[in-house]
Amino acid sequence: MKLATLKDGSRDGQLVVVSRDLASAHYATGIANRLQQALDDWGFVSPQLQDLSDALNAGRTRHAFPFDPAQCMAPLPRAYQWADGSAYLNHVELVRKARNAEVPESFYSDPLMYQGGSDDFIGPCDRIVAASEAFGIDFEAEVAVITGDVKMGATPAQALDGIRLVMLANDVSLRNLIPNELAKGFGFFQSKPATAFSPVAVTPDELGEAWQGGRVHLTLQSSWNGRKVGMCDAGEEMTFHFGELIAHIAKTRNVRAGSIVGSGTVSNKGVEKNGRMEWPKGYSCIAEKRCIETIQDGQPSTEFMKYGDTIRIEMKGRDGQSIFGAIDQEVAAP
Amino acid sequence: MKLATLKDGSRDGQLVVVSRDLASAHYATGIANRLQQALDDWGFVSPQLQDLSDALNAGRTRHAFPFDPAQCMAPLPRAYQWADGSAYLNHVELVRKARNAEVPESFYSDPLMYQGGSDDFIGPCDRIVAASEAFGIDFEAEVAVITGDVKMGATPAQALDGIRLVMLANDVSLRNLIPNELAKGFGFFQSKPATAFSPVAVTPDELGEAWQGGRVHLTLQSSWNGRKVGMCDAGEEMTFHFGELIAHIAKTRNVRAGSIVGSGTVSNKGVEKNGRMEWPKGYSCIAEKRCIETIQDGQPSTEFMKYGDTIRIEMKGRDGQSIFGAIDQEVAAP
Repeated sequence: MKLATLKDGSRDGQLVVVSRDLASAHYATGIANRLQQALDDWGFVSPQLQDLSDALNAGRTRHAFPFDPAQCMAPLPRAYQWADGSAYLNHVELVRKARNAEVPESFYSDPLMYQGGSDDFIGPCDRIVAASEAFGIDFEAEVAVITGDVKMGATPAQALDGIRLVMLANDVSLRNLIPNELAKGFGFFQSKPATAFSPVAVTPDELGEAWQGGRVHLTLQSSWNGRKVGMCDAGEEMTFHFGELIAHIAKTRNVRAGSIVGSGTVSNKGVEKNGRMEWPKGYSCIAEKRCIETIQDGQPSTEFMKYGDTIRIEMKGRDGQSIFGAIDQEVAAP
Repeated sequence: MKLATLKDGSRDGQLVVVSRDLASAHYATGIANRLQQALDDWGFVSPQLQDLSDALNAGRTRHAFPFDPAQCMAPLPRAYQWADGSAYLNHVELVRKARNAEVPESFYSDPLMYQGGSDDFIGPCDRIVAASEAFGIDFEAEVAVITGDVKMGATPAQALDGIRLVMLANDVSLRNLIPNELAKGFGFFQSKPATAFSPVAVTPDELGEAWQGGRVHLTLQSSWNGRKVGMCDAGEEMTFHFGELIAHIAKTRNVRAGSIVGSGTVSNKGVEKNGRMEWPKGYSCIAEKRCIETIQDGQPSTEFMKYGDTIRIEMKGRDGQSIFGAIDQEVAAP
C-alpha cells in the first residue's frame, strides 16, 4: 500500500491511503489520523490500512478524491529519528579522490552514518529556503526507509524485518558549511537544513522484485532545472543494505518505531571509455559532479544551486509508473 | 511549575504535574495526556497546567498522590530533536590537553554540538544497559532545556525566549567507541546509547534568580557508587548559554517545539595550589578525571564504569531542596 500525509494546518497532518497509480487518495480517518500512530501500532493498524488500500485500488471506496502531491507534507512531517547513511561507497571514493585522500579500509566494513535533525521535515513540493546562495546549496537524491521497533543488538537480517515503508529523500546540503563542521568532528548541523521526502511512502511489497536484499533495484532520476542529470541505479552498488545500516544504529541502542534511515547519495561507478573515465548514469548531487570535474580538469566548473533553481527527484517501477510521486522543489530566499 | 511523565506501558506515558517539594503529583488528564501535546500548544495548555500546579502546591487538589521518581520515564520519553552542546570549554580544553592538542580558536566563538538519537530515551531510574564493559561506559552530567518553536535565523535572545522547560541529563557515553567515530567525522552513533533525563522538568521561573543569562547558576552534583565526585558550578563557566546553542541550530533551519538542547558535560577550571593544579569541584564525567590524571601523571588511573556501578545526578536550589529529582541509575548487562 501507499501512504501520504496531507497538509491540514496541524504539525502532523492527515494520513491518507493513496492508490497505486497515485491518482486518488482516501482519508484513513477512523483507522489512524497520523502516520506515527500507525507505526506505533503497526500490527493492529496496518491490516486496516491495507483493506482500505485494496478497496481504493479496486475503485470500491465512496469518498476517494484526486491525489495532489503539492498538498503533501513529508509522510512523517516530524520523526523521532533521521539517521542518514553514506552507503554508496562510490560517492565517498569520488569525494576523497577529488581532495587526494584515500578511503580508509574500514569504510568498506563499517558504514558511515550521521544523525540528522528530524523535528522539521518539509514536503515534496515545499521550497528549499536558504538564507544565502553562498552556503553552496545542493540536493542529494536518496532512498529512505521507515522502521518499526528494532531491538538493540539486532542482526542485519532482523533489522531488515523491521522495515515498514520505503520512500525517497532530498537531503539538502549546504556544501560550503560542511568543511568547517567536519573539521570539528561532531557531525553536521548547520550544513544540513530541513530534509524533504517524496509525496508517498510505500510498503516494500509495492516494489515487487525490485526490493531485494535490502536494496531498491531501480533507477533514481534527478532533474535539475528540467535537465535530467542523474539516472542512477539504486540497487547493485549500495555497499551496505538497509538492514546493515539499521543494525549499525542498533548496536548500542534500541531503534524505535518511526525511525527514518537514509541510503545517502545514490552513486554509480564510472566506466573507462577511450582512455577517459565517464559517468554515463550522471549524478544524484552536484558535489559529486564537481568532484568528477576536479579529478578530470583540476577544478570544479559546475556551480551549486541558485535561487529559483528547481530539483525533481523520482523513481519509476519496471512498468514505467512513478512509485513514490516526485520530489519537486524550488530554491528560495527566506 | 514542575512536570513529569509516568510509566503506563505506552510509548509516551502520562503527563503529571509535580509539587514544588517533589512529594506529590497529579495527573494532567483533561488538560494534556502527553508532554509533547503541551509543548505543541504551549500558549493554550500551559496556563491550565499552571493552575493545576498552583492548586497542587496549595494542597487544594482532591486526587493528588505520592510522587515516585522510580515510576518516571524521561519527561519527553521520545523527542523530535536531541541536540547536545559542549558548552563548557574547560571540558574541551582538558580533553585536548590530555592528548597534547590545541583548542582551535574558533571553538570560543562557534559552539561544538552534536545531533543525538531521540527515539528512545530512558527514565531517571532506568538501568544503563551496555553489551560490554569494554565499551568504556561513562556518565555525563548535564543541564538540558526543552524548547518551543524557534524560527530559522533567530538571535540568541529570541532563542532564549523559546525555552519552555529545564531539566538534567545523563548523556551516557561509550568512551572506547568514540575515537573511531570521531575519526570518521560524521559525529557520534554507537558511542552514544540512550540518554537519561531527570524525573522532573521545570519552567525557568522555578529556578528563581538562579536562572540568569540563559544559564543555571547552581551546583550540579554527581555521585558515583555513592561517592560524591562532582560538585560543579553549572553557571559562570558555561561559555555558550542556551540561547546561543539554540540559535546555532536555528541558523539554517527551524527548531520545532519539543526540541531538547543539552549543555554538554558541566565542567569547571582547575586552580593552582602549591605549584600543582587542582580541580576542587570534581568532575561530571569520568573521561575528564582521566584527562586530569593523564595531564598530571602521564596516564589515566581511574577506570570507567562496571556492571553494578551506580550514578546519581542531582541539583539543589539555594534552599537546599532538590529541584529536578535525581537521576539514579545502575549499569547493567543486557
